[in-house]
Amino acid sequence: MTNFADISSRLTEQEIEVPSWAYGNSGTRFKVFGSPGTPRTVEEKVADAAAVHRFTGLAPRVALHIPWDEVDDYEALRRFAEEQGIGLGTINSNTFQDDDYKLGALTHTDAKIRQKAIDHHFACIDVMNATGSRDLKIWLAEGSNYPGQADMRGRQDRLAESLATIYERLSGDQRLVLEYKFFEPSFYHTDVPDWGTAYTQVAALGDNAVVCLDTGHHAPGTNIEFIVAQLLRLGKLGSFDFNSRFYADDDLIVGAADPYQLFRILFEVVRGGGYGRDGDVAFMLDQCHNIEKKIPGQIRSVLNVQEMTARALLVDTDALTAAQEDGDVLLANEIFMDAFYTDVRADLAAWRETQGLPANPMQAYLASGYQDQIEAERVGGTQAGWS
Amino acid sequence: MTNFADISSRLTEQEIEVPSWAYGNSGTRFKVFGSPGTPRTVEEKVADAAAVHRFTGLAPRVALHIPWDEVDDYEALRRFAEEQGIGLGTINSNTFQDDDYKLGALTHTDAKIRQKAIDHHFACIDVMNATGSRDLKIWLAEGSNYPGQADMRGRQDRLAESLATIYERLSGDQRLVLEYKFFEPSFYHTDVPDWGTAYTQVAALGDNAVVCLDTGHHAPGTNIEFIVAQLLRLGKLGSFDFNSRFYADDDLIVGAADPYQLFRILFEVVRGGGYGRDGDVAFMLDQCHNIEKKIPGQIRSVLNVQEMTARALLVDTDALTAAQEDGDVLLANEIFMDAFYTDVRADLAAWRETQGLPANPMQAYLASGYQDQIEAERVGGTQAGWS
Amino acid sequence: MTNFADISSRLTEQEIEVPSWAYGNSGTRFKVFGSPGTPRTVEEKVADAAAVHRFTGLAPRVALHIPWDEVDDYEALRRFAEEQGIGLGTINSNTFQDDDYKLGALTHTDAKIRQKAIDHHFACIDVMNATGSRDLKIWLAEGSNYPGQADMRGRQDRLAESLATIYERLSGDQRLVLEYKFFEPSFYHTDVPDWGTAYTQVAALGDNAVVCLDTGHHAPGTNIEFIVAQLLRLGKLGSFDFNSRFYADDDLIVGAADPYQLFRILFEVVRGGGYGRDGDVAFMLDQCHNIEKKIPGQIRSVLNVQEMTARALLVDTDALTAAQEDGDVLLANEIFMDAFYTDVRADLAAWRETQGLPANPMQAYLASGYQDQIEAERVGGTQAGWS
Amino acid sequence: MTNFADISSRLTEQEIEVPSWAYGNSGTRFKVFGSPGTPRTVEEKVADAAAVHRFTGLAPRVALHIPWDEVDDYEALRRFAEEQGIGLGTINSNTFQDDDYKLGALTHTDAKIRQKAIDHHFACIDVMNATGSRDLKIWLAEGSNYPGQADMRGRQDRLAESLATIYERLSGDQRLVLEYKFFEPSFYHTDVPDWGTAYTQVAALGDNAVVCLDTGHHAPGTNIEFIVAQLLRLGKLGSFDFNSRFYADDDLIVGAADPYQLFRILFEVVRGGGYGRDGDVAFMLDQCHNIEKKIPGQIRSVLNVQEMTARALLVDTDALTAAQEDGDVLLANEIFMDAFYTDVRADLAAWRETQGLPANPMQAYLASGYQDQIEAERVGGTQAGWS
Repeated sequence: MTNFADISSRLTEQEIEVPSWAYGNSGTRFKVFGSPGTPRTVEEKVADAAAVHRFTGLAPRVALHIPWDEVDDYEALRRFAEEQGIGLGTINSNTFQDDDYKLGALTHTDAKIRQKAIDHHFACIDVMNATGSRDLKIWLAEGSNYPGQADMRGRQDRLAESLATIYERLSGDQRLVLEYKFFEPSFYHTDVPDWGTAYTQVAALGDNAVVCLDTGHHAPGTNIEFIVAQLLRLGKLGSFDFNSRFYADDDLIVGAADPYQLFRILFEVVRGGGYGRDGDVAFMLDQCHNIEKKIPGQIRSVLNVQEMTARALLVDTDALTAAQEDGDVLLANEIFMDAFYTDVRADLAAWRETQGLPANPMQAYLASGYQDQIEAERVGGTQAGWS
Repeated sequence: MTNFADISSRLTEQEIEVPSWAYGNSGTRFKVFGSPGTPRTVEEKVADAAAVHRFTGLAPRVALHIPWDEVDDYEALRRFAEEQGIGLGTINSNTFQDDDYKLGALTHTDAKIRQKAIDHHFACIDVMNATGSRDLKIWLAEGSNYPGQADMRGRQDRLAESLATIYERLSGDQRLVLEYKFFEPSFYHTDVPDWGTAYTQVAALGDNAVVCLDTGHHAPGTNIEFIVAQLLRLGKLGSFDFNSRFYADDDLIVGAADPYQLFRILFEVVRGGGYGRDGDVAFMLDQCHNIEKKIPGQIRSVLNVQEMTARALLVDTDALTAAQEDGDVLLANEIFMDAFYTDVRADLAAWRETQGLPANPMQAYLASGYQDQIEAERVGGTQAGWS
Repeated sequence: MTNFADISSRLTEQEIEVPSWAYGNSGTRFKVFGSPGTPRTVEEKVADAAAVHRFTGLAPRVALHIPWDEVDDYEALRRFAEEQGIGLGTINSNTFQDDDYKLGALTHTDAKIRQKAIDHHFACIDVMNATGSRDLKIWLAEGSNYPGQADMRGRQDRLAESLATIYERLSGDQRLVLEYKFFEPSFYHTDVPDWGTAYTQVAALGDNAVVCLDTGHHAPGTNIEFIVAQLLRLGKLGSFDFNSRFYADDDLIVGAADPYQLFRILFEVVRGGGYGRDGDVAFMLDQCHNIEKKIPGQIRSVLNVQEMTARALLVDTDALTAAQEDGDVLLANEIFMDAFYTDVRADLAAWRETQGLPANPMQAYLASGYQDQIEAERVGGTQAGWS
Repeated sequence: MTNFADISSRLTEQEIEVPSWAYGNSGTRFKVFGSPGTPRTVEEKVADAAAVHRFTGLAPRVALHIPWDEVDDYEALRRFAEEQGIGLGTINSNTFQDDDYKLGALTHTDAKIRQKAIDHHFACIDVMNATGSRDLKIWLAEGSNYPGQADMRGRQDRLAESLATIYERLSGDQRLVLEYKFFEPSFYHTDVPDWGTAYTQVAALGDNAVVCLDTGHHAPGTNIEFIVAQLLRLGKLGSFDFNSRFYADDDLIVGAADPYQLFRILFEVVRGGGYGRDGDVAFMLDQCHNIEKKIPGQIRSVLNVQEMTARALLVDTDALTAAQEDGDVLLANEIFMDAFYTDVRADLAAWRETQGLPANPMQAYLASGYQDQIEAERVGGTQAGWS
């Protein structure tokens, strides 16, 4: 197997964007539990994201969500983030919380509502221009709940038109990143339910339109690493929304439900040239910390991605290829699992110290007093959350 | 095939409880859309439930949810309902919206929190004593999100103990009805995830403890009508929560996603002696009208149950049994589907008129002015909803 | 709602190909049950297919599977079929029953094995030239069982190359039709697992390469009618393999598991211009009659497609569009379901007689003596089956 | 975390039964690939099973399947096995490959066919008396493919009656072990589809009737470790059929698809007192080595179970309980995953040598020449397989 020493330089290439909304309260349709220390302002969210980066070295950017993170002065917000040691990342639009969008936004039968949703995306592009963000990420909550309620085909055509209008507004190396989702919040049909739909829509737009793969947005049993390989092959894997799930879009800590699946996904990213400086794939988290503490939840998440990336890099690809070409099913599988079963934690701890980072970021965070401080200071005001 | 005339007398036996919460606003974790005319008080919910009964003759009782439907004087509420033409039905407890229950209620490791949850059920039994309700329905939102977070086995033991304490408080013919659910709001494990768990828990309690089958609470592909047959065979099918789903617990209008499945379920209810005056199974709805109008949504739902019940009653069971015993697979299936394919709507319309009901309840409701009236009158105040 | 009289002319456009292998024995991995009257030769399969057409008027062509239906003289086979009253349809290749293909065929790492598989497709094209068949249907059983066993990305590239070589050999209006399948017989990854992969592969080939949608080849919960709409929109829906399923690729009689889903699929075919003389989509069956009689099983299947097509044609699309544009969720759904709930069987029976067909094809077949005759005559010899 | 030294004594308690049929050819419904060295006789299967035990020390018994392993003299077979160093284990009945059982066996409407199936089980008990086997394992392939085909409720009653008749024939500490399966080979309903049905059926029989949990026999998303905990709590977990799956009942090498799930299952076995000398749960494999070599496939499988058992034993249960009682979700999960992430392979290798076993059983087997020998010697004759 490959040695840890041989892969450590590649670990320095890892960058994971954290989402501003992970620091606010989230929950299920039944209940959102509040927690002490939850940010009340965009700046407090950015500060929390910066804490994750300070202890892990893995999270140099925070993604924003408009309108949840709307501020008057994005230049000032960018400077504030830089002072905290991080940058501003992907801009996420939101067309699912306005009453007008009850039956659709970019796909609505009413041209005025479509234009409203397009204008919202124009506003997001304005934010990108101010923050220097590269990516406009579009997750569409659109669809229908009952057969017959909507004309699925017509909606697909309107979606194409709306996306084209938004795409034209981008400039430079800005990218439109289209996310797909199997179901929820719509329960009969979703307008972008699968990678095939996202791919055909962005392929029609042009080179700067790519797909976002959220690891929780698939049908039961879907082989996600296959999709990773396919989208990389087609040159259209723009970014990941990492999280994990047992059932639906559970939005749990990435790697918590099936660490072996995360390993397989990361192996295909590396295999397909999507990792690090070689690649053009943005790694992001998209999770809900409903019952666990939010900053430690984010720290655990980026560490899980790092640990599984290390294991994926450890695969002895020459030996693997040889076994594959020999048709030695058991040996090929063993070589693959060898890397997964290797406990990289001690090596990672030692390597972190060479990078000026705490060997154990979680312990260091818990010992730092940051959590106590925010729980004491952030009293009163409205805690950030999804609505 | 059996004639409609032969089954019409059995249709008069049909009673479907409607849930008070179906008239309030509901939604997904992403957004709850408000709508004009939504009730602001328990009385307004009861009035809406009564409207459903008035036009359909199918919904003689409304189920209450505590604390959402808490009032000072339940006797008065009962009289109010009776004046509206309906009764009060099942009492539903709620242990999923109090901060103390974040990690469990009846299963919590902390005895004080378990006692608090038990006390809540005692309070529900007090309500039942005042309202004359027979059933205490318990849906437990309890479980865990991460492996290792909880001791699943210990929780099962504590659940048994808590349920026994609650069960002892019941009197007369009151029943404890335990609902199971595959997942949500917990995402790794649910304390009552399947009919087997609900069954073994209620079997340990005694004769007046039974199972509630919510049609949306199963794993993908589950043969629900088999469970219906099995629970009837075991004498433990207490009630249904009807709704429909394409993916998870979508809580759509019953019969909207798969009418043939609803037909098969109702056939097994009839087959197993659970229907009408023969049986002891409570039919209830449990749905969310997120985007459609609520009262018409409820009317459509009870009509769907009625239509599929009629078709199920139409199955020529003698011919079916003969074909089954002959091993004639195609003929048996044809006899079964014949009933399903029979369009009973005209016969039902005619029969409704013989019962003093409108032939087309939906049209009659829309023409009645009730919807306009509540939209005009119910302005201001806080609309009812899940929280 | 639209009247039956208004749609009956469109029903004459319906043509459904039946598969030669449906008349042979099939089963599960555990057991293949034999049955009396099973064909022993290709000609006997063709004769059985012709019987289905004779009684239903719906099945004017039989699809062949090479090598199962290999004969010395395809011209003679074509003449034989024509004498029976039907034509020869799609040619299906087979790369899953040769020992060389254990680890792959068109995707194998060994160029010699890939060439063998390509040569098999060339031989199929020779058959097409002799039979006058338009479509070469390729279902690939390829994939892997264990992570690491195969290089999924490399296989995708080799697949593209192999398909391009085959595609070049086609002439005139011949089409390459690529089928996708979620899983089985491979259990970790499948080389063409979803419509997206099939689409991107055929889009790279050219205009005469299209996708085959088998209704049993999807993940649980997949909205199949959405895929129908999408592939029609992209101009790439080549054909259907109709069957039905409760769990995996059960290959049951189409419409038996979820008739409402079949209705929704057919509605989208009509909506998207894929039906009848307007369209270019081949309707085929692909089923296994493991326990039921085979010819009656096929008759039931084509009748189910016809009945649901009639209902789909009955949808009042003007009223539906108006309700959709009004955002009237319940009305739109009601208009849609009205057509589904309409019992078209009596109208269809009457219409069949106007076409010189038996009103009840199933009864006519059972009364015809054909089944008794083949059970008496086809004794001895090797019954046709999958291997 | 617990030290390896503290758990090594418990590892000596591990015993895993291997199935005789794993050494024969198996496949999918599409193709069974043959392989050199496949046994032609029961003795050759026993010899291969003994080889697995010789190199791993983990597989002291081989399970038999009647009639596949029918011999004239079971005493002689037992002596042969003992000479090879292993014993004979569970006896598996087979009611799925006789033409009479096409529509059912223990549940058939025809009393003569039910009696035939009961008699087969009596014959199996005779074998048990000769071999000294404790367990009669019953997997029922029974069910139906089409709604209406069968009376599910009546079948359940007949099943109860048939099982009771078989159960009465057992003597001493013999056990009836009833397996459940979600679907396949039946595609609409299965007579024992879930643990609840298996549990209620065996609970009605008596103390010596228990449930077999096959890890591949559940609906997508099912939390299997919960069922393990529940059946242990109810005193009814009799045995495991270990394998793994991505989609349906794929019967892959145990631990190959989701090693973390296997860890969680084994943790619950230990937690619930089911492991080793404490417990009464039989560990068995039930797998198909369709494309990989069979003996190495079995070696990998028992090693996977051993490795995950070791990790499960390493969980620091005191610390875990403390974190659970503190409600520290992240810490509890971390303690749990710590054990899973620990690479036990080097410690296991060293410990094996203290037990007189090869440090690396797979390498030792491959180097031993056994595989070459059987491939050379076992030429001609009929290879063992499923039919």
